[in-house]
Amino acid sequence: MDVNHTTTVSQTEALNLRYGDGGEPAPGPWNEVIATLLSHRSVRGFRPDALPQGTLETLVAAAQSASTSSNLQTWSVVSVTDPAKKAALAKIASNQKHIEQCPLFLVWLADVSRNERLGLAEKVTLETIPHFESYLVAAIDATLAAQNATVAAESLGLSMVYIGAMRNNPVEVSRLLGLPPGAMGLFGMCVGYPLPTVTNEVKPRLPQSAILYHDTYDTATEAADRAAYDARMAAFSQRHEMTQDTWTKRVIGRMGKIAAMSGRDKLVSILNGMGFPLR
Amino acid sequence: MDVNHTTTVSQTEALNLRYGDGGEPAPGPWNEVIATLLSHRSVRGFRPDALPQGTLETLVAAAQSASTSSNLQTWSVVSVTDPAKKAALAKIASNQKHIEQCPLFLVWLADVSRNERLGLAEKVTLETIPHFESYLVAAIDATLAAQNATVAAESLGLSMVYIGAMRNNPVEVSRLLGLPPGAMGLFGMCVGYPLPTVTNEVKPRLPQSAILYHDTYDTATEAADRAAYDARMAAFSQRHEMTQDTWTKRVIGRMGKIAAMSGRDKLVSILNGMGFPLR
Repeated sequence: MDVNHTTTVSQTEALNLRYGDGGEPAPGPWNEVIATLLSHRSVRGFRPDALPQGTLETLVAAAQSASTSSNLQTWSVVSVTDPAKKAALAKIASNQKHIEQCPLFLVWLADVSRNERLGLAEKVTLETIPHFESYLVAAIDATLAAQNATVAAESLGLSMVYIGAMRNNPVEVSRLLGLPPGAMGLFGMCVGYPLPTVTNEVKPRLPQSAILYHDTYDTATEAADRAAYDARMAAFSQRHEMTQDTWTKRVIGRMGKIAAMSGRDKLVSILNGMGFPLR
Repeated sequence: MDVNHTTTVSQTEALNLRYGDGGEPAPGPWNEVIATLLSHRSVRGFRPDALPQGTLETLVAAAQSASTSSNLQTWSVVSVTDPAKKAALAKIASNQKHIEQCPLFLVWLADVSRNERLGLAEKVTLETIPHFESYLVAAIDATLAAQNATVAAESLGLSMVYIGAMRNNPVEVSRLLGLPPGAMGLFGMCVGYPLPTVTNEVKPRLPQSAILYHDTYDTATEAADRAAYDARMAAFSQRHEMTQDTWTKRVIGRMGKIAAMSGRDKLVSILNGMGFPLR
């Protein structure tokens, strides 16, 4: 079994890394698949080494094995290897160099166009396609698929990072990849072997009591959970980024001002122009 | 290692089950994690047996280990065990009995409300929250999390099915679970041990040439791919459901008429009323 060596940390250690001291849930069932999932960390520096033959097809087989709403399969994926296109995509993503660097760059599409072409070929109007719900299903299906590809990649000792910044300019992504109306780049994904200089640690998350509710939504512990998490994230960012940012400060920095959206505040009208009426 | 016994099929057999005779991609790298992913099938009949202690917490730890855009963590999950609530949720989902039957029913939330409360507590307006992009990020984050929980559950020998029908009536889901504005049930998930009478097979998907593109979107093989897949799906549905439905026929049945949306054609105005302006 060819599982990433980073998954050999113990259950106790894996939970400690993911939640930080004092944030760990009680340990439950465990196996190496779960250890692989817990050890995820996003990587933004890749060796140029090519991936083993057939890796892309294995990742796509994993992706296609995820659930898809009513088997509609309203998603696609574009594997980008053309250096000029990778450079242009990196530029859209505020010059994230790892897009050019990684041996495999995937753009995951919310794509109702295939089913639309089916309707056209069969001379049947598919009334549901212009609806917001159809876009949402396509986005959910693309995401389920992409996450299975992520798990498969990490199980093979590869690293990855999602690139939400494809949404900074969906029209240009569409032009570069020749997408038809009804298809859009939902996010990108860099895949490759991490540079030896990349040493980023598993990032702690909110304690489970701030995310998991029982029968009824309940914010009773939220203020205390956030204070504890802020302290853990400040320590984490001091260890790794030479800052002392709390989660609170990061959320405000990211969600506070429209300028932080890099153009994504216009997404509705952009999608409307790309064949998604979002009715 | 406690991996589901269904993962012990060979690579050749797994690819054949997933794509059908003649639809298989060339075999690439392989391991037991990938075999677990390929062996996924949705299950709609569950034994009442309780899950091992700590299973929920392990699934949530896997879920929280998935990527989340800028670490915003704009998702939550409600574990529903109250039989009255499960019955009410089953009713919303057109009486899907497995919602009542399964020992663990999870409702995954797109949830910007936690971050909104953070802004309120810190006396900072988070300008980005009313935007469509923030809803989309929340939906993507909830889906990444849920799919990790799925992989973890299946690795433990459990089965699951997603319940998109939570979106048939998001307002009632919200009322039942006490959700605040800015949180909505994106989909449900049944988890449990499959009934011994449940014998559903891995469902074939479109051939990779219909889903995976290289540098440029390309529909050259699409008509032939769909014809071949229609034949495979007709054979599959004859083996399992005593019908002979092609994929084409299923897509038209599901996407053709607004009536098939079970109320989800109103989703934009419903979300607007739930604290998502989708600006």
